[in-house]
Amino acid sequence: MVEVSEALVSQVNKTLANSVPSPIRVVDDRFSKIDGILKLTLGEPDFSAPEHIKQAIIADVAADDSHYSPSQGVIALREAISDYLTERFDTPRYDPKSEISVTVGAAEAISATFQALFNPGDELIVPTPTFPLYESVAKMNHIEVIGLNTAPDFLVTPAKLTATIKEHPNAKAILLNYPSNPTGVTYSAAQLAVLADILREHNLLVISDEIYAELVYDEKHTSMAKLLPEQTILISGLSKSHAMTGYRIGYVVGPSALMNQIGKAHQSMVATAPGPMMAGAIEALRNGREDPVAMRTVYQKRRDFVLEGLAKAGFTAAQPGGAFYIFAKIPASLNTNDLEFVYDLAETVKLGIAPGSIFGAGGEGYIRISYAASTEKLQTAMTRLQHYVELKK
Amino acid sequence: MVEVSEALVSQVNKTLANSVPSPIRVVDDRFSKIDGILKLTLGEPDFSAPEHIKQAIIADVAADDSHYSPSQGVIALREAISDYLTERFDTPRYDPKSEISVTVGAAEAISATFQALFNPGDELIVPTPTFPLYESVAKMNHIEVIGLNTAPDFLVTPAKLTATIKEHPNAKAILLNYPSNPTGVTYSAAQLAVLADILREHNLLVISDEIYAELVYDEKHTSMAKLLPEQTILISGLSKSHAMTGYRIGYVVGPSALMNQIGKAHQSMVATAPGPMMAGAIEALRNGREDPVAMRTVYQKRRDFVLEGLAKAGFTAAQPGGAFYIFAKIPASLNTNDLEFVYDLAETVKLGIAPGSIFGAGGEGYIRISYAASTEKLQTAMTRLQHYVELKK
Repeated sequence: MVEVSEALVSQVNKTLANSVPSPIRVVDDRFSKIDGILKLTLGEPDFSAPEHIKQAIIADVAADDSHYSPSQGVIALREAISDYLTERFDTPRYDPKSEISVTVGAAEAISATFQALFNPGDELIVPTPTFPLYESVAKMNHIEVIGLNTAPDFLVTPAKLTATIKEHPNAKAILLNYPSNPTGVTYSAAQLAVLADILREHNLLVISDEIYAELVYDEKHTSMAKLLPEQTILISGLSKSHAMTGYRIGYVVGPSALMNQIGKAHQSMVATAPGPMMAGAIEALRNGREDPVAMRTVYQKRRDFVLEGLAKAGFTAAQPGGAFYIFAKIPASLNTNDLEFVYDLAETVKLGIAPGSIFGAGGEGYIRISYAASTEKLQTAMTRLQHYVELKK
Repeated sequence: MVEVSEALVSQVNKTLANSVPSPIRVVDDRFSKIDGILKLTLGEPDFSAPEHIKQAIIADVAADDSHYSPSQGVIALREAISDYLTERFDTPRYDPKSEISVTVGAAEAISATFQALFNPGDELIVPTPTFPLYESVAKMNHIEVIGLNTAPDFLVTPAKLTATIKEHPNAKAILLNYPSNPTGVTYSAAQLAVLADILREHNLLVISDEIYAELVYDEKHTSMAKLLPEQTILISGLSKSHAMTGYRIGYVVGPSALMNQIGKAHQSMVATAPGPMMAGAIEALRNGREDPVAMRTVYQKRRDFVLEGLAKAGFTAAQPGGAFYIFAKIPASLNTNDLEFVYDLAETVKLGIAPGSIFGAGGEGYIRISYAASTEKLQTAMTRLQHYVELKK
């Protein structure tokens, strides 16, 4: 242990120092102290990365790819991303040389984008409930976050969007994340087209985090990069689609004049992503287009199983069209709030679930269940939940 | 290609937009257009990563390490870093749980540290000539950079340090980087002890980037983490010591109250470093302590060869005690400045060398030669340089 001068501690960055630890972490830490708890709080696939992707990484390491890669990523990966987006989501063809940056996961893509495109005081519309990272990165960059409460349908409707823009005429950008973490809700092509028209009319920059695009169960995913490319910064990555969260490969694409700036921020932030991990991403996009299909089939079965289990326990949920989350309303009969509920649930039947309120306005009274867990675990979880509800009757 | 709304382009972050492209990149781009040019501009080992490190990564990938690692890095790596620093550099024992974060290279360590520990307007002393990244990251975080010109010895002397602190009594921190990129100059234990006393007296935070600590040719490297741990944030990594720049594993260590904040910034910036790359770093620190020795021997021979070649051409250099750079003074007889010189040298004899002025005040009239290149290339380079000087006589 190292002593520290107290005067130095008091001088750290105020915004960061005042940011509480990630609320999901606080909840999770409390759960972790309960013996035998079953947690459905994690936002990552329980699958491991496909074998052919692992082999591509192994071959790349064996071939001595230990030197710096180009800052924006190896060109072969940028070409693979460009082809994938066009072929899979019908986007315009993004120029691998000037319109694509490979990042250290979607997290770094968000940090670099926020740092590059906003000035202190700029206003960003963030629909809630939402993944808490956006707000914390926005705050670090002195961006004013304007909440747009999407409850109870958890969709940005044309009416809500128009009202928010009217109330905040200086808003510069909107953050979209669909399929959504935490709600699992996503948009149809028709719904998105209406939103795109409004955003075009007001010339709002769209930062569209579509990391769950491959995990869509009903209608095919529509990208904002297809509908509104001239105003869209698309953020995505391989973590969720190919169960390779730990490899940390994400990307940002958009018009070159904006990517120029994002590329500078990315370069000074991390220099470049690791070469061997990029080799895995090339393999995933070139030869692993079917990988998400198999996982999607499993996730969909789990989703349906959990929805049914929740219904039996008296919980209702907005239609979770994608990702691997269900955002469910706690029955009024339990007469509780979401924080009290999840702690009591954890202590009574050893089941750990994220409380909705930690995802911002509109999440109060809800829980987020991640079904990126084995079918066996999900069965046990539903049994415990139903047992809990029985106990409280 | 994607069209873009011009209004959106004009709204990007002003600090970043006004930052010119990295000057070394501008110079390098111009060199790249010259057929048959030999460049000694790169700051990375020409060696590949050692085989046993590659095998550790391969084994880790094969063992399905494709899930998120803990945000601050796998505990086994944090323990290896703690042991390594104590055993190799006689630092206090840093607590792996609370005083160490694993980052995506030293670059991310710098970004996270600057973001976490400074408020807008804070003053940071940066000795020059210096690696340009520090200033660009500082600017993005609205930090006021106070230059301390170290020419002509390229050492921060007690007199210069005291004068700078006196002139800037509100300075909060100093950035040290030794052995230095771009000068190759480093400090003796005695020199550092005097500086540490002054820094202690003024309670200045020290951000000490010691990424080249294993590449020291004369006296053994002394870490500021040994001399002044209560005020020091130590930044380092495996890139230079183990020739694994492309694997992107760096780290930050320091007192827990400061590391707390740096860890938060790191988490929101990149979530975590990639697991397989961390497995390589564990192997490097546990079983690769001798790896740098072999490389160091080769570098030292090259250094001596280049110093001799430079002397023959009439160039003098401050004693380059570490890293793989020589910072040499262009002979007055050539009657030129460093930018003109490097472009004329490149066009006349096809040799590309970085001009000193791009590294800030004190670098004018110098060149930086990287000897992280094969002996054969260095021989050709010295022949070309000597030929150029002959031509200009």
